[in-house]
Amino acid sequence: MLEIEVKARADHQQVKELLAGMGANFIGVQHHCDTYFNAPHRDFANTDEALRIRSVDGRSVMTYKGKKLDTVSKTREEFETEVDGGNARSILLALGFYESGVVKKTREIFKYGNMTICLDSVGSLGEFIEVEITAESDIEFHSKQIFSFLDKLGIGKEDSIRTSYLEMVLEK
Amino acid sequence: MLEIEVKARADHQQVKELLAGMGANFIGVQHHCDTYFNAPHRDFANTDEALRIRSVDGRSVMTYKGKKLDTVSKTREEFETEVDGGNARSILLALGFYESGVVKKTREIFKYGNMTICLDSVGSLGEFIEVEITAESDIEFHSKQIFSFLDKLGIGKEDSIRTSYLEMVLEK
Repeated sequence: MLEIEVKARADHQQVKELLAGMGANFIGVQHHCDTYFNAPHRDFANTDEALRIRSVDGRSVMTYKGKKLDTVSKTREEFETEVDGGNARSILLALGFYESGVVKKTREIFKYGNMTICLDSVGSLGEFIEVEITAESDIEFHSKQIFSFLDKLGIGKEDSIRTSYLEMVLEK
Repeated sequence: MLEIEVKARADHQQVKELLAGMGANFIGVQHHCDTYFNAPHRDFANTDEALRIRSVDGRSVMTYKGKKLDTVSKTREEFETEVDGGNARSILLALGFYESGVVKKTREIFKYGNMTICLDSVGSLGEFIEVEITAESDIEFHSKQIFSFLDKLGIGKEDSIRTSYLEMVLEK
């Protein structure tokens, strides 16, 4: 499964007004505590992979993201499974994986057609928008759709950020 | 959490009659398909660890078992979490883990006090009994309890098998 995703900085107040005008559906708010792990046998900072346990309001999900598949969006191969967060962490640590960082954020989620729009407030990093389409293929087609949508929110292709929140947090 | 466990070959018909006489509770029958994985950065055949996804009647559990902690039982550190079996497998393969073998068995489960008794019929390997106690500590105390219980079933300490089903399957 592919996650075709574009991220940019955004003024949430302004974006919410535009989303309301378009008739986008508000889905809900989530509080994420994301723990990222690195591997004992290769450095995910070099391979551009990610392994994460996300805790969302009591539930935990383990996600693997492969390296980015194109040069403009953040499209990656992605697999995820709900887990017992504490035990999944213990399994990873026992296998030699280690924690590389923690990202805490509040995510407001909207749906518009086949797109999921996330307005993320990430600790000291500020406000962001992530627009995602989940698909089996057709990266280019779906990327175009996302950029065309972002354009209506006043966000251009040149505003796209491919740096992960983890990288931004670690750079601070 | 520790899994204090002793395994031996056993005639299931005979053991079941003895368990019935003791008043052990029959819990149920499970059909297991266990896929074992090996790691890209160390060989579990040498480190005596195990990483498994067990599929039981539609549900999947990922389990890590550390190396054996004593010389007579099969006591190990163990962590497990329910997972989406297909996606958990995809995550492990993407991380560089690979399948080392598959073990299929039918397990009849009984409870007797703090002990779980498993009567395993393992493909072409035959019939086995596994007696387990889950505890935070006190390996020696619990091992003694298990061996004393097995003694009543006519199974001596010398009958204890520390070889895993996976190792037996791979040796075939």
